[in-house]
Amino acid sequence: MRVYLDNAATTAMDDRVIEAMIPFMKEHYGNPSSVHTHGREVRTAIERSRKKVAELLNASPSEIFFTSGGTEADNTALVCGIDRHSIKHVITSPIEHHAVLHTLEECAKKGHVKLSMVEVNEAGEISMDHLRTLLQSGDKAMVSIMHANNEVGNINDLHEIGAIAYEKGAFVHSDTVQTMGHYVHDVKQMSVDALVGAAHKFHGPKGAGFLYVRKEKKILPLIHGGAQERNMRGGTENVIGIIGLAKALELAYEDMSGHRLHIEALKKHMKEKLIQEIPGVTFNGLSGDLDKSLYTVLNVSLPPSEENSGMLLFNLDLHGISASGGSACSSGATVGSHVLRTLGHTAERDAVRFSFSRFNTIEEIDYTVEKLKELYPVEV
Amino acid sequence: MRVYLDNAATTAMDDRVIEAMIPFMKEHYGNPSSVHTHGREVRTAIERSRKKVAELLNASPSEIFFTSGGTEADNTALVCGIDRHSIKHVITSPIEHHAVLHTLEECAKKGHVKLSMVEVNEAGEISMDHLRTLLQSGDKAMVSIMHANNEVGNINDLHEIGAIAYEKGAFVHSDTVQTMGHYVHDVKQMSVDALVGAAHKFHGPKGAGFLYVRKEKKILPLIHGGAQERNMRGGTENVIGIIGLAKALELAYEDMSGHRLHIEALKKHMKEKLIQEIPGVTFNGLSGDLDKSLYTVLNVSLPPSEENSGMLLFNLDLHGISASGGSACSSGATVGSHVLRTLGHTAERDAVRFSFSRFNTIEEIDYTVEKLKELYPVEV
Repeated sequence: MRVYLDNAATTAMDDRVIEAMIPFMKEHYGNPSSVHTHGREVRTAIERSRKKVAELLNASPSEIFFTSGGTEADNTALVCGIDRHSIKHVITSPIEHHAVLHTLEECAKKGHVKLSMVEVNEAGEISMDHLRTLLQSGDKAMVSIMHANNEVGNINDLHEIGAIAYEKGAFVHSDTVQTMGHYVHDVKQMSVDALVGAAHKFHGPKGAGFLYVRKEKKILPLIHGGAQERNMRGGTENVIGIIGLAKALELAYEDMSGHRLHIEALKKHMKEKLIQEIPGVTFNGLSGDLDKSLYTVLNVSLPPSEENSGMLLFNLDLHGISASGGSACSSGATVGSHVLRTLGHTAERDAVRFSFSRFNTIEEIDYTVEKLKELYPVEV
Repeated sequence: MRVYLDNAATTAMDDRVIEAMIPFMKEHYGNPSSVHTHGREVRTAIERSRKKVAELLNASPSEIFFTSGGTEADNTALVCGIDRHSIKHVITSPIEHHAVLHTLEECAKKGHVKLSMVEVNEAGEISMDHLRTLLQSGDKAMVSIMHANNEVGNINDLHEIGAIAYEKGAFVHSDTVQTMGHYVHDVKQMSVDALVGAAHKFHGPKGAGFLYVRKEKKILPLIHGGAQERNMRGGTENVIGIIGLAKALELAYEDMSGHRLHIEALKKHMKEKLIQEIPGVTFNGLSGDLDKSLYTVLNVSLPPSEENSGMLLFNLDLHGISASGGSACSSGATVGSHVLRTLGHTAERDAVRFSFSRFNTIEEIDYTVEKLKELYPVEV
C-alpha cells in the first residue's frame, strides 16, 4: 500500500485539471501577447481564468496577477509593496514560511526596512497585544502574517489582525498558500491588501500561483520585461499553469464543504485513533484543536523512541507512507524546522506532519496508525 | 489554410515533449523537496533534466538554474549579478529585449548603476570600438548584449564582445533566448558568464526557462523562500515545465543541423520570392543576410501602401497567416517597436516579422507570399 499524506507539501492533480490543460499543450499554442488568431485564443483563455479566480475571491480581475507560484507572489507583495508604499517597518511572525521570512530578512539586511517579530506562545498563537505595541512606532508599516501555518496548521484570525493593522494605516499582506482552495476568501470582507495562492496546494499544477493586490494599494513589478499581467510581471505567461490553476480553484470552490466534511472526518479519526493506540502522543501547535487549525493538517509529536529517533519519516516511507517533518519546502536543507523550534518542541520527540486531501481514505488512515503503532509498541 | 509564422514569439510544442510531461501530471506528483518516495522520484527527474541541459551546453549541472522563463532568468542575472559583483556600470545595447532594457533601466533609476548604451548603426550592428571606449571608465562593469535580436534577427559576435569585456574584467551576460535550441552554445568556448533559455522558443512549454551562471561568477537569488535550486530560487519547482524544457532542448540538439537546413531553405525561398513578387520590398536589420542573421527570422519592410498602412498584420490574419510586427513580448503595448525605431525604419512602410520553425513547409511560404502579393499588387 502506498499512502500519500503530505498534501500540505503538494497535492495530486485532479484529472479534470489535466484535461483542461492538455488542449493548451496540443492545439492552442499561440503567445497570448500576439495579436493574431493564434495569440488571441490563448489571451482569451488567460483572461477567462483571471475572471474566474477573481469571481471566486470576490475581487476584480484587475486585482489578480498570475505568478510562478506562491513564493514569487509573496516575494512580489513584500519587496514591491515595501518599495511602492515607502514602508519603513515590517511586522511579521517567527513561524512564517521562508518565502516570507527570508524575503523580509533580505529587505532588512539591505537596510530597506526595520523588521519586528510579533510574539507567539508555545502553541504558536500570535500576541495581538504585542502586535498593537509594535504598531505604535509610527513608521509607515507593513504587517505580514500567514493565514495558516504550513507545519502545525494553526489558523490566525486575519480579521482581527487586519483590523488592528488597518487602524494604524499599515499595508497588510497574508501568506494564504495553505488556506487558498480550502477556505473561502472574500476580499471585500477582509482587511487584507495582498494575498497569494499556489495551484499545486489545491490539486493544480506546480509552478503556477497568483497574487491578489487590492486596487487601492497598487504595487510595482518584481520581474521586468514586458507588458504582461498589465505591466506587473514581464515574461510569456505559463499558459497551461494559469489554465490549470483557475480550473483547480473552481473545482475547489465547487464542493468546498463536501471536501471539508470528508477531510475533517479523516483528521478527527486519525487524532482519536492515535490517542487510543499510542500512549504519550501529543499534537504540535494547535493542530489537535479542530476549530483552530487547518482541517488538512495534523502535526503529531511522538513519544521518545531510540529506534525511531531521527528515522521516523524514513521508517514510515519504508512502510509506503509519505509524510513530512517540518515544511517540505525547506526539507532540502538539513536544518530542523524553525517553526517547531519556536514552539519549543523538544528534540527527544519526533514530529511528523500528516496532511490530507479529498483523495485520502479512512483505510489509509487506519493503515498509517497501524504502522505507527508497530513503530511505537506499547511496553508490556 | 492556417499558417503560423510567429515562431520567434512562441513555438508549437513537440508531441514528444508533451509525452514526457504527462506522467508528471498524472502519476509523479510528489514535491521534489520531500524526502519520501513520492518526492524523491520527482527530485531524480529534475536533476536528470538539469544534467541533460548542462551536458548540451558543456556546463556543469551546478551552473544551471531553472526559472519561470527567459525573462526571470534575465532579471536574475542582471539584478543579482549587479548586486553580488558590486557592478557600478552596465553597458547594453538599445535594441535589447525589454527583459534586459527595462530591468537595467530600473536598476539605473534606483541609482544602483550607471547605464550606457553602445552605439548601433542603421543595420543594428554594434560598434565594437564604442564598446571598448565605454569600458575605459574603470568602474566595475557588466556587459549585457543579446546573442541575436528577436525582431530583426541580427546575430552579434559574442566571442568578440566577450573577449573585449573580459579584457576589462567585466561580468558578461547575454540574452540568448532566440538562439538557445537553434545554435550550439558551448560555455567552455564562450567568454560569457550568464546566459538564458526559454523552453517555449524551442518547442517546449511556456513558463519554463533556465539561467546558466559560470561557477566562478556565482550570483545571489532574486526570489527568496526555500532551498530549491541550491538556494538560488525559492519556490516549488515547475516540475512539468522543467521536464518539458530538458526534453525540448534534447530534441533541438539531436537534429539541429537537420532543422537548420530545413528552416534556412524556407527563409531563403521566402526572401527570393518576395524580391521577385513585390517590387520595393526590403529587409530590416541584417535579416536579409543569411550569414549574419537568425535562420529562423525574416523581418520584411513593405513598400508604402495606403490600404495596408497599420493594418498589415490584421490583413494577414484575415488570410489565416499569423505573423508579428515587432516583438510579440510587448505587442500588448500600443507603442511601436523600439528596435525598428532605433534602426530608423520609416513609419510609412509596414514591417512584419516572419519567423519559422521545423514544422513549417514550403507550401505555407508560397501561400504567404501569394497573399502578400494580393495585398501589395504591382501597379500596371
